[in-house]
Amino acid sequence: MKTHLTSIAIMEMEQRERAQLINSITGFKSVGLIGSVNEAGKTNLAIFNSFVHIGANPPLIGFIMRPDSVERHTLSNIISTGYYTINHINASFYKQAHQTSARYPVEVSEFDATGLTPEYKNEFKAPFVAESAIQLGVELKERINLNINNTILIIGEIKEIYFPTHCLQADGYIDIEKAGTIACTGLDGYHTTQSIERLPYAKP
Amino acid sequence: MKTHLTSIAIMEMEQRERAQLINSITGFKSVGLIGSVNEAGKTNLAIFNSFVHIGANPPLIGFIMRPDSVERHTLSNIISTGYYTINHINASFYKQAHQTSARYPVEVSEFDATGLTPEYKNEFKAPFVAESAIQLGVELKERINLNINNTILIIGEIKEIYFPTHCLQADGYIDIEKAGTIACTGLDGYHTTQSIERLPYAKP
Repeated sequence: MKTHLTSIAIMEMEQRERAQLINSITGFKSVGLIGSVNEAGKTNLAIFNSFVHIGANPPLIGFIMRPDSVERHTLSNIISTGYYTINHINASFYKQAHQTSARYPVEVSEFDATGLTPEYKNEFKAPFVAESAIQLGVELKERINLNINNTILIIGEIKEIYFPTHCLQADGYIDIEKAGTIACTGLDGYHTTQSIERLPYAKP
Repeated sequence: MKTHLTSIAIMEMEQRERAQLINSITGFKSVGLIGSVNEAGKTNLAIFNSFVHIGANPPLIGFIMRPDSVERHTLSNIISTGYYTINHINASFYKQAHQTSARYPVEVSEFDATGLTPEYKNEFKAPFVAESAIQLGVELKERINLNINNTILIIGEIKEIYFPTHCLQADGYIDIEKAGTIACTGLDGYHTTQSIERLPYAKP
């Protein structure tokens, strides 16, 4: 049996219920930790699940940010330094990753609060998460205000990539399932995956 | 052992290899079929893996489109009619879903070419995919050109939702894994999922 919700029914829902519904109904999502640092060297770590591929040449990744939320420290750090990291989440530390979404005061680093380890390397300005199997170093390229609901699309260029060598396939594809990356649903659901297959390029 | 790729190494890669790398390195993705129709009633169906949650109040979903690609029929239909559907993909028909990415001529509907079934209901202007467990009816709200690489962010408002009734949880969350929705990686990798757990709202 199927349930049908109309626009009126969706808009009449209690706010948190609608947030759960709409966040989950749009499908499986990437989930990652954004590492950043302010000018004084104070680190910040925040979980995001709104990443989107923008392009490969140059390599661009976007994510959506709500400016009025716990995410604001991440935003101010990215704007002031121009750099951030995106770190995949593995099943071994998803609880710590989720815990970064708590509203810690600005003087508390989520690295310290959750026990995750900041890792600086190859002179990249922002901290990676040492526990992450796949780590991206990203340079801010564009901030686009979405007037429709006052969210912000942040677009960055991927400048550094670290991944487990055995996950690279001959054609350039990285097997992120083999690397242990997990997926998420809604605001709080975490999932491991099981590959069905990779399909060849489709022709008519 | 980890491999480290610098910006120079990424930009020196062969183009298709870089496309595989960058599309896969950004994490698991939603994958869905966008159903649309032109003014003459000709249907179109295309697979997309660049959906992003924009907001829940009102319920907004975005996706990224390359204007010079096979996706252009979808774009012209969405702009001329103002409506489209987003349909989850289940393991039972992922091969047909993938096949919609082939470059069919404009006079061929991907519904006919792949054997998927257009479903019109409740006077919504665009066709749903009858085989999909979860179906969204969406109204175009905004088209934002991303000058950085000439892609387009299409933002729509979710006006209709159909889902299997037994997948709804008490707080509004839809268990899309129970509905059989699959996830994707890269350009061509399909995955089922296994729930780890849902975590409670995080507090410091």
